[in-house]
Parts: sequence; C-alpha cells; structure tokens
Amino acid sequence: MSNAHERVRHEGLRSKIMTADQAAEFIHDGMTVGISGFTGAGYPKALPTAIANRAKQVHADGKSFGINMLTGASTAPECDGVLAEAGAIKFRSPFQSDPTLRNSINAGNTEYQDMHLSHVEQQIRQGFYGEMQVAIIEATGITEDGKIIPSMGIGNNNEILKVAKQVIIEVNVAQNTKLEGMHDIQFDIGTPPNRQPIQIIEPFDRIGTPYLECDLDKIVAIVITDGGDRNSKFAKPDDTSKRIAAQIIDFFSHEVKAGRLPKNLLPLQSGVGNVANAVLAGLLDAPFEDLTGYTEVLQDGMLDLVIAGKMKTASATALSFSPDALQRFNDNIEFLRDKLILRPMEFTNNPEVIRRLGVIGMNAMIEADIYGNVNSTHIMGTKMMNGIGGSGDFTRNAFFSFFVSPSTAKDGKISAIVPMVSHHDHTEHDVMFIVTEQGMADLRGKSPKQRAKLIIENCSHPDYRDMLRDYYDHAEALSAKTGGVHTPHILTEALSWHQRFVETGDMRIK
Amino acid sequence: MSNAHERVRHEGLRSKIMTADQAAEFIHDGMTVGISGFTGAGYPKALPTAIANRAKQVHADGKSFGINMLTGASTAPECDGVLAEAGAIKFRSPFQSDPTLRNSINAGNTEYQDMHLSHVEQQIRQGFYGEMQVAIIEATGITEDGKIIPSMGIGNNNEILKVAKQVIIEVNVAQNTKLEGMHDIQFDIGTPPNRQPIQIIEPFDRIGTPYLECDLDKIVAIVITDGGDRNSKFAKPDDTSKRIAAQIIDFFSHEVKAGRLPKNLLPLQSGVGNVANAVLAGLLDAPFEDLTGYTEVLQDGMLDLVIAGKMKTASATALSFSPDALQRFNDNIEFLRDKLILRPMEFTNNPEVIRRLGVIGMNAMIEADIYGNVNSTHIMGTKMMNGIGGSGDFTRNAFFSFFVSPSTAKDGKISAIVPMVSHHDHTEHDVMFIVTEQGMADLRGKSPKQRAKLIIENCSHPDYRDMLRDYYDHAEALSAKTGGVHTPHILTEALSWHQRFVETGDMRIK
Repeated sequence: MSNAHERVRHEGLRSKIMTADQAAEFIHDGMTVGISGFTGAGYPKALPTAIANRAKQVHADGKSFGINMLTGASTAPECDGVLAEAGAIKFRSPFQSDPTLRNSINAGNTEYQDMHLSHVEQQIRQGFYGEMQVAIIEATGITEDGKIIPSMGIGNNNEILKVAKQVIIEVNVAQNTKLEGMHDIQFDIGTPPNRQPIQIIEPFDRIGTPYLECDLDKIVAIVITDGGDRNSKFAKPDDTSKRIAAQIIDFFSHEVKAGRLPKNLLPLQSGVGNVANAVLAGLLDAPFEDLTGYTEVLQDGMLDLVIAGKMKTASATALSFSPDALQRFNDNIEFLRDKLILRPMEFTNNPEVIRRLGVIGMNAMIEADIYGNVNSTHIMGTKMMNGIGGSGDFTRNAFFSFFVSPSTAKDGKISAIVPMVSHHDHTEHDVMFIVTEQGMADLRGKSPKQRAKLIIENCSHPDYRDMLRDYYDHAEALSAKTGGVHTPHILTEALSWHQRFVETGDMRIK
Repeated sequence: MSNAHERVRHEGLRSKIMTADQAAEFIHDGMTVGISGFTGAGYPKALPTAIANRAKQVHADGKSFGINMLTGASTAPECDGVLAEAGAIKFRSPFQSDPTLRNSINAGNTEYQDMHLSHVEQQIRQGFYGEMQVAIIEATGITEDGKIIPSMGIGNNNEILKVAKQVIIEVNVAQNTKLEGMHDIQFDIGTPPNRQPIQIIEPFDRIGTPYLECDLDKIVAIVITDGGDRNSKFAKPDDTSKRIAAQIIDFFSHEVKAGRLPKNLLPLQSGVGNVANAVLAGLLDAPFEDLTGYTEVLQDGMLDLVIAGKMKTASATALSFSPDALQRFNDNIEFLRDKLILRPMEFTNNPEVIRRLGVIGMNAMIEADIYGNVNSTHIMGTKMMNGIGGSGDFTRNAFFSFFVSPSTAKDGKISAIVPMVSHHDHTEHDVMFIVTEQGMADLRGKSPKQRAKLIIENCSHPDYRDMLRDYYDHAEALSAKTGGVHTPHILTEALSWHQRFVETGDMRIK
C-alpha cells in the first residue's frame, strides 16, 4: 500500500481507506447516486461491482435494490454493465452506451432520461433531480490539503461532489500521476440570477484550478483501485469514412480561400465514433496549421493532431483512447501537459462558450430525413441506442454544424436518408450540413423543399435515390391538394420505411 | 415637411429625401433585401407597397421580379402582405405571420426558411445568405450626426445596416420622438474567433448606445412616412387561458416557497399570442414584486406589469401593442423610458445571456406529443403556420421552459396532445413543462414512459384521453416485442390522428 500512501497525500483521509465491499455499504435502495465517468474514461472501477453484488444479495432476499444514477456520460462494462446486469439501475441519465444497460432500458427495466450534457450539471444544482445522497468519483490522487486530482475525465464531478451528502473516492493507481495540473475547474459557475460571464475567450484559457474540491467531512470512504479505462479500439478509417472526411476538408479549404474562415479554421468539436475520428485523421494531411480543439471527448484522432504538431491546443472533458493511443498519450505526456486541458462538461458544452468561439461541430447520426432533421438516438423510432450526448449543445451553437454517416447501414438494408426520421434529436432549424460518402448537402439559407432536393441528390445511396425522389414527388403533389407545400409529406407513408424494416429486415421494396 | 425637417436632423441627408416610388427604383429582381420589422412593429410602411407596384408592372411585362427578404420577424399586411400578394417574395426568412405570405409559402410560391432568431444576424454577418444589396429600415428619426433613432423594434437592423451595400431609411413621423434613448445597441458583437463575453449580467444592463449606425454614403434614399404599426388586438383572457396561467403561477409560488426560485422569480420571457399574454396578465394579481422581463417581443401583458409597478424593468427587441396598449404606452412614456429597453435580437435571444440570466421561458405551441416533443410551426405536418421565432432560443437555454396551449382546437376536433407530433421544433430533450387548461406535466428528470403517463393524464382533454391511453398501451405492448420499450410507438399509427383530421376534419374516431 505504499503506492496508495503516495496517492492519498492527505494524512487524515488515509483513515477512510477501505475495501470496495465495505464502501458499498453506504449505498442503499432508492438512493440518487452521482458516478464519475465520461465515454469510458474516469469511471469507478471497483465500487460498481461491489454495489452490484450487494444488489444481487438484496434481490435474493426478495427485496428491492436499485439506484438513480447520474454520470457524466457513458462508462464501461465494469460500471454501467455490472450494475445493469444486477438490475440495480432504476433510473439513469444522461448518456450511456453499454450493451447490458441499453438492453435494460429497451426492455423497460431502467427508466432513462436522455439529456443534453450541458444541462445536467445545472439541473442537478438547481434541484431538478432532488437530493443526491452519494457521489462516487474516480481520482488520480488526493493532495496534502485534501484536494482531489481528477483522472482521465471530469464530466459532472465538480457538481456532484458539491451537492452529494456523502462522497466515496476511488483512487486509481493505474492513472498517470502526471495528469496532475492538466485539469481546469472553476469551482462555482453560480445559479441564476447570480451568474457572471464565463471567461473562456480562447479555447485553451484557464479560468480555475487543476483540482476538484469538496467538504472533507463528506468523504466517507476511499477505495484504492488499479485498473485501466475502457479503451475501446477504433476501426481504421475505411473508404467510406475517408470520402466523408475529404468532403469536409475540401469545404474548409474553400471557405478559407473565400475569406470566410481563418486559415487555422475555428475550434474543432468531434463527436464519438469511427467516422468523426476519420475526419480528424484526415486533417493530419490537410493544409491547415495551428488548429485548436474545443470538444467534449478527445479521442485518438485529435490526440494525433496534437502530437503531430498540427493542433496547438485542445480542450475537452475526457480523454478516451484506444489502447495504442493511450500508450502514445503516456509516452508523450510531458509534451502534451500544456496542450491538453480537461474541464467540467458544463464548460466544454456550454452554449455561451461554443457560440462565442464559433466551434465547428462534427457529429455522427443514425439517420437524417430529406428536410434535414436528424435522429441521433433511436433505432426504428422506439429503441434507444446511446443518447444525444453533447451533439445538441454543439449543433445549436456551432459556427458550422455537420452531421456525418455512411449513406447505408446493415449491408445496405437501412438507408441513412429517409422520408421522415423516426425520432427527432436535431431539427431542420439546427442542421447545416449532411455528409455521406455519396456527397454533401449544404442546407444553409434554404427552404425545406430546396433542402430535400439537395439531400436526396447529393447524400442518399443510389439504391434508395429513386425511392426518395418518388416519395418527395408524391408528397409534393399530395400536399399541394391540401395547401401545405411548405414541408411536403405523406402522413401515411412518412414512417413506412422503418415499418418495412421492422417487418422484412430491409428498407428496400422487394 | 417641417416635421420631416425636425426628424431628419442631419442636413446633408435631407437631400436624400424622396418618394417611396422613387426609392423603390433601387430594388431589382433577385436582390437580397434586409427589411426592418419585428412582430408587427417597426416595419417600413411605404416602400413595400411601392416595391409591390413595381413588381406588378414588371410582371405585366412578362418579366421576373422577386426578392430574397430577410426581416427581424413578422411584419404586417402593408409589408409582407402586399409583397406576397404581388408575387414579389422569392425567398423569406425568418418568422412571418401574414396570411397572404403564409398562403404563398404553402402554395410553394415562396421559399421560406424557418430559423431560430438568434442565428439570423450572425449568419448574415458570416455570409451564409450571400451578399445583401439593400437594407430598408424604419426609423423614428436621424440625429445631427447621422445616427439612426430606431422605432418600435430593432430586430436585425444593426446587422443589415452594416452589411447591405445600399440603405433606404423610412422616417416615420407617427413614431413617438420620446423613443429616442430607449434602445441599447452594441455595434459589433464580433465574428469568431474574435469575440468577447456579452456584458449583460442583469436584464436591464446597457452595453451600447441608443443609436443605429451606418456608413452615411450608403444611404441612397430617405422616405418620410406617417403610419401606425400593425397593433393587432388581443383577445381578453378567457377561462382556458386563465386556468393555464393559474397553474404556472401556482408553480412559481411553490418553487419560491421551496427556496428554489428567488422571490421576484427570474427574468420572464413570453412568446406571442393570447395564452402567453394571459399568463402575464395573471401575474398582475400574483404575490410577486420587482419582476423583470427578458423577452423578444414585449406585448400588452408585460407593459401592464411595468405600468402597475409589478415589473421593474423589461428588455425586448420590439414593442408590439394592441391599439389600447399603444395609447397606455404613449401616455406613460416618461415613466417607461428608463424601465423598457430595446436591443438587437442577437442580444435578446442570445443563448449566452438567456442561460446566464436563467430566463423563465413561456411559449405557445400547436401540439405536443405524449413524450414531450413540441410542434410550434406546422399544421398537420406540411403546412407552415408562422415559424419557430425565438421559442427555441429560449427553450434550450431557459431555467424553466413552459409550453402552453388549450388542450383542443377547432371546437374539439383537434387535440393538442397527440401520439407523435407531425413536426418537431422542440425535442423531448428540451421541453420541461407542458400546460393546458386540464393540468400541467412536469417532465424534468423523467424517462419518455414516465412523461407519457403524466402528459396523457394531466394535460390531454377528456375527449381524447382514452384514445391516448389506448395508443400508449398498444405501443408499449408492440414495442416490447421488438425490444424497444424506451419510446413506445406504433409506426403505422403514430401520425394517424393527423391523417384522420385531413380525411374527416376531426381527430376523434366517429
């Protein structure tokens, strides 16, 4: 435990060190629990399993045991996964991506609220979720004076440490001690009407301290762990992703040439996933220097831009790397320490800062419709995938907002361009660009009818293009009869592609 | 013309005074024209008719004449109306509400882009709409040094004066000269990456000057007019509106008592329309003092709160009154001058300021669905009503966001609560409260299934409640089969209520 000794530098707090099983005793049925973790980074490694075991025991006695769980974003199998598997999550918010938890949500066993990430911290503070009994936070260490050194993600840790009645800290000795100093946390953003402007004027501005803080008397347990983050692998960019990336990069070049975009572009935001990662990978070979990043989760693509010297600084709330990229991060941490900054998600995703900086938002989607509405969350209208995450925070406030997807999924059986999306996460008022490997549709300054033509002709897969043209033409003719040609639709067919897939496993007409 | 002489105090500019017909000669086919006007206030009174006449002449010669028209928001019959009637509006953005223009949009003759108001100015500045050839601005007068005294609305005048190549000013002698000094205009908010925080910390903070400015060489014409604004009448609050208002006010009382809301509440935003107006009227008799307003259009209800001393200050981008309220405004203008402030809509609707202040947003809706998605714009999915206006700017950033509507329309033939909205303007991620005369649904911290039960039981009209329960129950059972019980839907029936209305004129099953 000498390592533990070095990590928990506050003498008094060392007496709180205990096993995860002991710490799990603080968690009871019906509690609202704030848990650290953002996109598979910085989640507690031991407590969730201990709580899950406790839940199973309680359930075996025929009693109820479930928590209301608020995280930063997605965690991992050993956090969301084990708790969902034990049937211990009654309510969950905001973003998630664990298959077991997803099944629990889609089976109706977990109530899930899918929220914009920028809203979560302030709504916890404002009491919208009621009292929070316990916060469980992963840390890299604790300083002599009891300040908490965050690990690979911050998410909403700052807020849940403040509002929770009791705090459990997992000190993970596997996290690099050189993370200390890379975070920037403004302790209190205030509650209306007592708020001041957020003083982030440049993406890398530091406005707080590198530490999280809480009333030390609230810390009831410290658990020492030694485990890696989720570290999911990325797919190597394929042709589809590369074609999507190339179009976005061409557009940037065009805008720089026209003088409408600075030579170093504007701060880049990139959502999770392979396609978004491919766009960043494409920038490695693009003629732009001194790039900046202002994003929520920093993944392999952005890391490599910084290491390559193409991006000078990047701000995020979490570092979520593949195993290889984690190695590159640790190998280069001295170089990276003054170039990467981690903030609470209330700051990374704040509309004030995003709009001021003029962030370029690039997010993946499940499907778009011919009018530019985007579905980021639901499969066939009813089944939750992961959640909206920060895509809405960025889309609504970005200088440019892109939604990217291959034009088809499931070997061509699903079209990413449909007559009407089966769930609306981003509306026609918000979406500026749709990009597939087929092409790009620039929706700015266009009416729904003008957008429909662009999206069908530029973005849809040839297998579906005639079907979409046919839908649009019939919709226009029908809507003309009822005097509603602003957004032509056939109400009885708008969702028929999804219904056909549910019935036949293919959106195409046989 | 002595009155004109007093209003145009800059000597050199007097030489630019001409008739509207003469000024209309500056407008040509295909031009992008910025026109002042916001919710029937501050729009040009003479030029539109002159341009419409010109369009008719050109059309009579078998030639094309149409403009791309960008306003603040809706104007009036003698602006949007006459131009639409002449077939002279090719493209229009953002908000509109004139019946003739609406028909032109729904007939497919005018391309209309329905935009969040907070986006319009910055997207004009960023060049998203291309070049703007002419700005036509109503003013109360012009100062000795050529500064423009705005009239009853600002909208996007600040921006279009800057970017337009030529400027035409209508000086309206019917506007009260005491409006001078009531406006607050920050000349330049900057373009990313060169932007600073907006220094509005309190709703009434002044951060600019009371005048609009432009390069005087760009002013090609000044037209003197003498006409009132639209000044539509409000319906007197009826029982339905009063019941909606009472519930919101009760909720405020409850939150103040619980210590979650200051005694003087938070800055109030109210959308247009009779129900929103009724909520404000209800506050006249409520136990709250020292209220503040931070809204986009200030109508009768808010005016009366200020006159009654219940509201200490109110910020807006336009004053849109009924004829009676206009009289009260003019009678009390000395008292009101330091209590009302008019700003560019980029400031009234800015997400940075709205979120910082913690505005309470209250907006009307056309329909909501059982999961809390809201349609603010479309009738039966295809036909444009007025547009989203600023409802999205406020909803997404408000401390509390309410959507209000009577539970039925058209003598009960339309339910305002439906299985799935036929158009999505505000998503389940954004909407916090739905209020009808039947009751209120507090959607905060709830999953879609939990929301559905609340909305059906609390908000729907009894005539439709069993139908909604039936839809939900069947949707849940069906979705369970496909493993998608997060947001239960029946894809083949989700829009069937609208289809039934289109076919039979009634959403109810006969």
